[in-house]
Amino acid sequence: MRTVFWEDNTLKMIDQRRLPGSLEMITCWTYGDVEQAIKNMTVRGAPAIGAAAAFGLALAAQGSEARTTLQLFSDLETAAMLLKASRPTAVNLAWALDRMLQAIRDKLEGITPEEIRVFALQEAQSIANEDVEINKRMGQHGAALIDDGDTIIHHCNTGALAVVDWGTALGVIRTAHDQGKHVHVLVDETRPRLQGARLTAWELQQYGIPFEIISDNMAGYFLHTGQAQKVLFGADRITANGDIANKIGTYMLALAARDNGVPVYSVAPISTIDLSMADGSLIPIEERDPDEVLGIQFHGERIAPQGAGARNPAFDVTPNRLITGIVTEKGIVYPPFIDNLIEIMRK
Amino acid sequence: MRTVFWEDNTLKMIDQRRLPGSLEMITCWTYGDVEQAIKNMTVRGAPAIGAAAAFGLALAAQGSEARTTLQLFSDLETAAMLLKASRPTAVNLAWALDRMLQAIRDKLEGITPEEIRVFALQEAQSIANEDVEINKRMGQHGAALIDDGDTIIHHCNTGALAVVDWGTALGVIRTAHDQGKHVHVLVDETRPRLQGARLTAWELQQYGIPFEIISDNMAGYFLHTGQAQKVLFGADRITANGDIANKIGTYMLALAARDNGVPVYSVAPISTIDLSMADGSLIPIEERDPDEVLGIQFHGERIAPQGAGARNPAFDVTPNRLITGIVTEKGIVYPPFIDNLIEIMRK
Repeated sequence: MRTVFWEDNTLKMIDQRRLPGSLEMITCWTYGDVEQAIKNMTVRGAPAIGAAAAFGLALAAQGSEARTTLQLFSDLETAAMLLKASRPTAVNLAWALDRMLQAIRDKLEGITPEEIRVFALQEAQSIANEDVEINKRMGQHGAALIDDGDTIIHHCNTGALAVVDWGTALGVIRTAHDQGKHVHVLVDETRPRLQGARLTAWELQQYGIPFEIISDNMAGYFLHTGQAQKVLFGADRITANGDIANKIGTYMLALAARDNGVPVYSVAPISTIDLSMADGSLIPIEERDPDEVLGIQFHGERIAPQGAGARNPAFDVTPNRLITGIVTEKGIVYPPFIDNLIEIMRK
Repeated sequence: MRTVFWEDNTLKMIDQRRLPGSLEMITCWTYGDVEQAIKNMTVRGAPAIGAAAAFGLALAAQGSEARTTLQLFSDLETAAMLLKASRPTAVNLAWALDRMLQAIRDKLEGITPEEIRVFALQEAQSIANEDVEINKRMGQHGAALIDDGDTIIHHCNTGALAVVDWGTALGVIRTAHDQGKHVHVLVDETRPRLQGARLTAWELQQYGIPFEIISDNMAGYFLHTGQAQKVLFGADRITANGDIANKIGTYMLALAARDNGVPVYSVAPISTIDLSMADGSLIPIEERDPDEVLGIQFHGERIAPQGAGARNPAFDVTPNRLITGIVTEKGIVYPPFIDNLIEIMRK
């Protein structure tokens, strides 16, 4: 099953907020539903929200009552703007919507609104199908970096649930496992929303890959005591110089790996690379509801005292100097990233 | 109210597992009760468990049916051995018990078992009273490091609850606040047991010091974006070279501070310094029940999937190169720690 897919003229998606307790689907009838699903993290993971947004634009085309192609295109531009704003940090969202708009713009002359509606859906399907292919290729490239017997620290969720199917960093681990390499994963629980403990642990169980959950602040201990050989995570946006915005906590994990000489790989499709930004300081960092930090319970009791406040930045930026390599579908990019990211995009 | 205190021939202590939900006391009638309370973290914080263990030895003296001083001393040695094993990483526990045994050994000749029982309690009371004094002095020394307007990242709980009264790192923050300096605290929630979100946040509310809770993996973001000017924590054991064992997560926090040029201070009494250990690699690191990692809930539902395992090291070691200074009751120790720790102990 794919994380997001088109069925009966609607977009279906796995409700990732319900896992691992239960595997439920939700249906999006309008692009507003998709916007909401991205905001409340029913769907999350940079490539998955990219594909979801593309289907969202197909829903916008379906839902528009425009009778002219120009009017329809204007409606799509509005929808794309709203969808882009639903999560500001990941660039795949903007990339997928821009690709949709560009493809439609190229076809505008001489076709009917109805043909645009059909074409928009086809393009969204292409984005979703290509995403699966891209993930498989990243898996192949990345698996070459994994040694038999490696213990890998993994942050957030980058598996099938974060993409359309297969996974980015977790896709690399799956590919290595399928190749017969013995790997063990230390799963960062990934506070505050616990995508590691909830989603990555659940996926690893499905795949039969051995793992243990750790709290994020334990990674340094395992790295310092020689109990982990690789650090892997995805990316939400990679700037021209190789700085990487990713789920909050990635920066501290990369620092701890670097301090102990353990290689750090980010696994992300080319669509995550944003050459329009010179460095990570320019990336907008989303700050979410404090209740994501405050709302956890132990033995049914809320942890934080009544009236306590919290901060909740959802992402941080890992400087390029802490990154050993970036695994893309076109191969692995090594420093100097400022040259080699452009190089790989030209391929 | 003190965290641990003697009343009606028993040891009373605040049940720290119940905070911030409710403020309850438990009573220890035997040294076995104290051992249990340390193991299950009814009482926690290196200085607090040191004082609790000292009172535990007074309970052991009371409870022993020995009729000779030698037999009684032998019973106390056994009790001390068992109490020491209740938490292996913090050295204050061993320090307090060794001080108790040494003080009693010095008196053994010519006194009765009953006089030993009285003396053991007096010595435990002295340890507890001195702890409060020591904390106040650390507060004075440390507050000089805090600037008006500082935002301070603080790990775990080092307040009144971690000691007999006042606090170590949090004691410094309280003293600075009492001096009229405007401080803001970013409270590391401190997974897995959440001593920050539960205990430090609760204490800061009592003192009227402004704060916000963050998940531990967010500290790097605030340090990297210039939103924090100091990092403060306690210590469970400081080796001869200045390596510091402290609550899990301290190492990654110190790394992030160092990477951004933010000063890092450990605040701990001289009794935390263990010159018998050359460096941090020798410190035993306690690994606790995986359920402390796995057991949290969100909206009443357990986070981790059924059958998932976890690792749970309770402490890590921060190398001396990441420490700006160590605040003790005798003053602030700066590098080179290998010389200056011995120097301050001689004072």
